[in-house]
Amino acid sequence: MNEAAKTLDGWYVLHDFRKIDWTSWKTVPSEEREQMINEFTALLDNWNQTESEGKGSHALYSIVGQKADLMIMVLRPTMEELNVIELALDKSGLASYTIPTYSYVSVVELSNYLAGDSNEDPYQNPHVRSRLYPQLPRWKHVCFYPMDKRRQGEDNWYMLPMDQRKDLMRSHGMIGRGYAGIVKQIISGSVGFDDWEWGVTLFSDDVLQFKKLVYEMRFDEVSARYGEFGSFYVGNILEKEQLAHYFYV
Amino acid sequence: MNEAAKTLDGWYVLHDFRKIDWTSWKTVPSEEREQMINEFTALLDNWNQTESEGKGSHALYSIVGQKADLMIMVLRPTMEELNVIELALDKSGLASYTIPTYSYVSVVELSNYLAGDSNEDPYQNPHVRSRLYPQLPRWKHVCFYPMDKRRQGEDNWYMLPMDQRKDLMRSHGMIGRGYAGIVKQIISGSVGFDDWEWGVTLFSDDVLQFKKLVYEMRFDEVSARYGEFGSFYVGNILEKEQLAHYFYV
Amino acid sequence: MNEAAKTLDGWYVLHDFRKIDWTSWKTVPSEEREQMINEFTALLDNWNQTESEGKGSHALYSIVGQKADLMIMVLRPTMEELNVIELALDKSGLASYTIPTYSYVSVVELSNYLAGDSNEDPYQNPHVRSRLYPQLPRWKHVCFYPMDKRRQGEDNWYMLPMDQRKDLMRSHGMIGRGYAGIVKQIISGSVGFDDWEWGVTLFSDDVLQFKKLVYEMRFDEVSARYGEFGSFYVGNILEKEQLAHYFYV
Amino acid sequence: MNEAAKTLDGWYVLHDFRKIDWTSWKTVPSEEREQMINEFTALLDNWNQTESEGKGSHALYSIVGQKADLMIMVLRPTMEELNVIELALDKSGLASYTIPTYSYVSVVELSNYLAGDSNEDPYQNPHVRSRLYPQLPRWKHVCFYPMDKRRQGEDNWYMLPMDQRKDLMRSHGMIGRGYAGIVKQIISGSVGFDDWEWGVTLFSDDVLQFKKLVYEMRFDEVSARYGEFGSFYVGNILEKEQLAHYFYV
Amino acid sequence: MNEAAKTLDGWYVLHDFRKIDWTSWKTVPSEEREQMINEFTALLDNWNQTESEGKGSHALYSIVGQKADLMIMVLRPTMEELNVIELALDKSGLASYTIPTYSYVSVVELSNYLAGDSNEDPYQNPHVRSRLYPQLPRWKHVCFYPMDKRRQGEDNWYMLPMDQRKDLMRSHGMIGRGYAGIVKQIISGSVGFDDWEWGVTLFSDDVLQFKKLVYEMRFDEVSARYGEFGSFYVGNILEKEQLAHYFYV
Repeated sequence: MNEAAKTLDGWYVLHDFRKIDWTSWKTVPSEEREQMINEFTALLDNWNQTESEGKGSHALYSIVGQKADLMIMVLRPTMEELNVIELALDKSGLASYTIPTYSYVSVVELSNYLAGDSNEDPYQNPHVRSRLYPQLPRWKHVCFYPMDKRRQGEDNWYMLPMDQRKDLMRSHGMIGRGYAGIVKQIISGSVGFDDWEWGVTLFSDDVLQFKKLVYEMRFDEVSARYGEFGSFYVGNILEKEQLAHYFYV
Repeated sequence: MNEAAKTLDGWYVLHDFRKIDWTSWKTVPSEEREQMINEFTALLDNWNQTESEGKGSHALYSIVGQKADLMIMVLRPTMEELNVIELALDKSGLASYTIPTYSYVSVVELSNYLAGDSNEDPYQNPHVRSRLYPQLPRWKHVCFYPMDKRRQGEDNWYMLPMDQRKDLMRSHGMIGRGYAGIVKQIISGSVGFDDWEWGVTLFSDDVLQFKKLVYEMRFDEVSARYGEFGSFYVGNILEKEQLAHYFYV
Repeated sequence: MNEAAKTLDGWYVLHDFRKIDWTSWKTVPSEEREQMINEFTALLDNWNQTESEGKGSHALYSIVGQKADLMIMVLRPTMEELNVIELALDKSGLASYTIPTYSYVSVVELSNYLAGDSNEDPYQNPHVRSRLYPQLPRWKHVCFYPMDKRRQGEDNWYMLPMDQRKDLMRSHGMIGRGYAGIVKQIISGSVGFDDWEWGVTLFSDDVLQFKKLVYEMRFDEVSARYGEFGSFYVGNILEKEQLAHYFYV
Repeated sequence: MNEAAKTLDGWYVLHDFRKIDWTSWKTVPSEEREQMINEFTALLDNWNQTESEGKGSHALYSIVGQKADLMIMVLRPTMEELNVIELALDKSGLASYTIPTYSYVSVVELSNYLAGDSNEDPYQNPHVRSRLYPQLPRWKHVCFYPMDKRRQGEDNWYMLPMDQRKDLMRSHGMIGRGYAGIVKQIISGSVGFDDWEWGVTLFSDDVLQFKKLVYEMRFDEVSARYGEFGSFYVGNILEKEQLAHYFYV
Repeated sequence: MNEAAKTLDGWYVLHDFRKIDWTSWKTVPSEEREQMINEFTALLDNWNQTESEGKGSHALYSIVGQKADLMIMVLRPTMEELNVIELALDKSGLASYTIPTYSYVSVVELSNYLAGDSNEDPYQNPHVRSRLYPQLPRWKHVCFYPMDKRRQGEDNWYMLPMDQRKDLMRSHGMIGRGYAGIVKQIISGSVGFDDWEWGVTLFSDDVLQFKKLVYEMRFDEVSARYGEFGSFYVGNILEKEQLAHYFYV
């Protein structure tokens, strides 16, 4: 039997992608529209409050292309809280003018591939904590995609010995480190929670860096031989102050 | 010709996943909504009665993410009873405000891979019976996914000799046993009934244990080389007392 | 060039799967509903008449799970007749309250893999005729699935020599024969007619036998290495007398 | 670098598959329905005129099964004409009661695999011209499917040397020739135009011959190792005189 | 670790494919329709203005077949501008009568496979600039498809050494050069932005050249062994002056 990777697990994450039903939205009287935007803004205020208390984080982006218009990403300490937030969103007035197009359920994850040997409890380590319970940056662009490690013929990640996986991940991590400060990366594990094994969320002020990072990694053996990728979503930040303009019709 | 695994088969199982059409639901006058919730609660009472008589079991969970809002899981001695329950559900008032998103038809199954050599009729063994005709636990979280054993090039489970399959399943079972008391696992067979070969339903009071269990197993050869997985659904228990609040708009 | 299998071909077959739109159905006044059920019953009477004249056969089952509510299976001597029946069905009142979810077009088929060496015209052989132009049994349960023979790398059925295919099919047929009297199996070929190469329809009074048969076969090399399977549909017989109750809302 | 096959290219082809929305159609007053059928018949007359002038051809078939009700196939000298026809169809009254389910864009193609060595301009050869600019036969049945040549591991058609491809195609062509006069075959290339590399349209007065031809070919190495197939559509001819009856509700 | 290809990146690109909902469109009073066409024409004028200032480019084509009716392709210096354009389009009156069917997000890309060795900053090279920030030609036909480089068993592009990739791309580029002046090709990279790695947009006055080019390339090892292709869209140019006629019902 092979040696399973160990993980540290932080906040639970819901990515919620929706399209706006502009045709119906345009039929709504402007005061009602305003009311619904206010209701949505109140939800955001609520989440900001939670964030300022260090009990979660969230992000709102406008997605480019037809796959979605909005991406709402929420991090919370429990799966129940994600459910409560999802329900509040679904019951909101604005939700009646949106069409769900994709979602992803996961938990912020750090693997032990890159861990040092320490007797310390990693959950007490402030650096580790800041990564397990991250404050999402308000950077201009977001990129999200789910992925698997391949299990196919000769290219079976899960049959590799731990040492080899460690070596491969180290080289992979080196590429990521080359983008430190430029691209912030949140890895969340979804084995047992959703259809792929991980969700990857990238933030950057320069959208081109997403392409450069993901493309550079693709030539690395971990991705080249062992990576399987789902749909990619890319978007621009949608600040609270932009909402009135964004929804104006 | 290869030696087929033998199975013990218990209650038939229907997993029924639905989204709620909140937009339409909100247009319903509150008394009518209450009436429909009452009708649904009466169905649940009915099923509880059946459960208390040892003639079946069921579970109701709220799913996280857009794949579904509700998971209704029902176990019964016959396929006809599942059909009757499905029909009653479909004809109920609440069903008009739900959108079916996935379902799964299977039968609780124990395989002979881990069986001892006994002359006893296993269907008379109380321990076996409690597994074939299980009372579903009212634990906080559920995880459901369908799966196949792979038949692909060198990785063809069904071409392995019985002894090798037994060895592999034993090692696999060891992992499961490490979660005894923490994760309850119902395996139901669906060859000939639905699109995958098995459905796996996990219950736990700690949702993170689903991820730990499934991820640990993925490094085991049975999953690493021979497992193919469908969609994963994860959710939180929805108690009868919570229904009024859950459906309140 | 390889030697193609020869087939004997009987009646053309249409499998038609539909969901019922209960929400709309409930809005229909009860007399209109009754009228539509009567119209549908008249169609069934019509088909029964055809069946009693030996000019075709049909079956009506209630499918379990969300893939479909009804399966209508019709056998006729010509493709044109299937088209006429489909059109009559589509134009019927009841059809407006159903949503087509799947269909399958094929022709009852016997292959020469298991044929003896005879100079006789098989189409004159009464035993062969009863299999090419079968009266479908009114058994309690049905199972339908489409399938292909695999053409993938080393596992390419169509590149095997005739003798090897014959041997493999013989061993495969032995399993089927073990279920004689318990499971009735109709194989219909669909190369050139629909998306898979064959449709398999099983009938039994014990639904568990579908699982036992298909699972046992899966360990046989023909299925293990060369079988590719589509969606599985399982259901319970829906007798004419049950229709009023079935559609009652 | 490998030697690419050369092609001769004739008329552009649009296959347009639609379902009829019978539920809506039934709500239309009969005079309006008649008007729309007349408008559609006028379109057909128009196309017949074009056909009689040798400037194109077309076919109308009723498809069996739920994938489509109608198949309209149109051949024209330019891609612009196909667009004009599609637009006229989409804007017609009848189109509002149809649901597009599939389409295919291609160009009638002859490959040089079977060509002799000649200095003649093949586009001047009357036999070649009759195949590049064919009058579609008014035969009872049609079969359409798209296909690719496989590029997978050891089974990569496009990596084979020209001579080997020629040999394989010659043997393949022999099977087709066995059906001369019984099945008429139109091969149209769609590389760069649609999702598969070729569309195959078969016509016959005996629908069973489609199955016999395609099945026999499947054992030939070109199909067995190198063929990938899309959805199959089969249907019966729908003559202008049948339209009133066909659309009668 | 392998050597990643370097890219030069130009304008961001949005391909937006839509069907027209003719049934609803026909219900709109003609003055309103005219108004909406005028609003759309104003958008086009706006984009033409941007194009004449060298700050972007765009194209409008009518797609043949059911996958889409319109393809709108827009190039801009930033991802935010694409978002603004998409939003303006979605909020326009005409958009309420269109159904989004596909979109693609990418950035015009030149790879270093074919680059010479120069110390010059390529972004200052006028020839390079004209390719990174191209004025789209107003040619009669368009062809769009997304593609990946394969990572499968022995056919793994990303595991090849840089020199081998260079050699393969050089031979591939030779084919393209054979179509110089006949087919204009825009390659845009979408790693990290959309579901495939590249989008390919071809323009030509002779639609048959798309098929000839793509088919010839398919026999080249880069495509034969390493190319994976998505859906193909082909269409005819839709000039501003044609819009009134195009939308006339």
